[in-house]
Amino acid sequence: MSEQQAVRRADAQRNIERILDAAAVRLSRDPDASVAAIAAEAGLGRVTVYGHFPTRGALVAAVVERAIAEGDAALEAVDLTGDPRAALVRLIEQSWLSLQQIGALSAAAASALPPERLLALHERPAARVERLLERGQRDGVFRADLPLPWLTGTLHRAIHGAAGEIDARRMTADDAPELIAATVLAALTPPGGTVPAVHDWRHP
Amino acid sequence: MSEQQAVRRADAQRNIERILDAAAVRLSRDPDASVAAIAAEAGLGRVTVYGHFPTRGALVAAVVERAIAEGDAALEAVDLTGDPRAALVRLIEQSWLSLQQIGALSAAAASALPPERLLALHERPAARVERLLERGQRDGVFRADLPLPWLTGTLHRAIHGAAGEIDARRMTADDAPELIAATVLAALTPPGGTVPAVHDWRHP
Repeated sequence: MSEQQAVRRADAQRNIERILDAAAVRLSRDPDASVAAIAAEAGLGRVTVYGHFPTRGALVAAVVERAIAEGDAALEAVDLTGDPRAALVRLIEQSWLSLQQIGALSAAAASALPPERLLALHERPAARVERLLERGQRDGVFRADLPLPWLTGTLHRAIHGAAGEIDARRMTADDAPELIAATVLAALTPPGGTVPAVHDWRHP
Repeated sequence: MSEQQAVRRADAQRNIERILDAAAVRLSRDPDASVAAIAAEAGLGRVTVYGHFPTRGALVAAVVERAIAEGDAALEAVDLTGDPRAALVRLIEQSWLSLQQIGALSAAAASALPPERLLALHERPAARVERLLERGQRDGVFRADLPLPWLTGTLHRAIHGAAGEIDARRMTADDAPELIAATVLAALTPPGGTVPAVHDWRHP
């Protein structure tokens, strides 16, 4: 690769990042934001945007996929070792952060990604939770008297419930992780066991 | 009222009950069941049915309202005295039974009743749960460290989650009340408290 080629490629990469950043900002505010609006936000011409993303759908899909990859990388980085209850609190806190970022794009995502792709995107986070709950069950700190899909569903439902409570203005996004963690940790406690205080495990 | 009038009125009342029973059966199986199909199920003519219910919409609304009134009466009859946790288990079991009966009609109900009526129908059961949770909080057996709407929402979400699990064939309707009760009782246990075994309180 010549030096000129290398410079051109670096420029292109920088433009792609600028376009994706701008698209994330605009689409979070307005799921129907046009390519022109996204180009303006990026400080680039529409032709440049279309040079990298042939259609608006391709651009939206790329933004959503990037947000999901970032969210997944952040979740993958969570330390899931040690006490499974403390690990679950950390996982819930990061899941909430990642979901906030992806959630803002979800209205745009729903139309940009095929349903089977959206479904597949739930699999990695779901499998991660399942592995942690299984470890907690083996350690005896999570209940094993109810089916695992029901227990993972409890976390899923708490997260979605919190999103609904925030939409209804009965809860703030800042309060959500603690409410979710407190509820799910209690729900996962084996009968006869003592419900832990979440505070002990937050921001240690 | 003459004897003849009294006989006629008793006949009419019997026909109305027959029509409502038949409509409940047909509409549970097929939310789009026609008046002709309902009349056939009742063993009556369409003209007789229309004599009591001028439109299909009026008939569907009457069936749904009757199912809701029956469900509400059954819930009102639940003994909510004594240990709030045992009372909650009884309330969950009856709520599940009532919901199963109303739920079968819900597809028909959604089109027959205006949204504000459907919303109002949630209020009495929700208020009943709220009063019971408040009593349990005063008694110290239910947690008071999380907002009450979030705690009542935990029950709501568990019930709806169970319905979803049954639709997905990951759970049977028979297992649902115990799973719901076990999860919600644990979720409501105050931090530092011991999670109760649901078995002790079922079918005493």
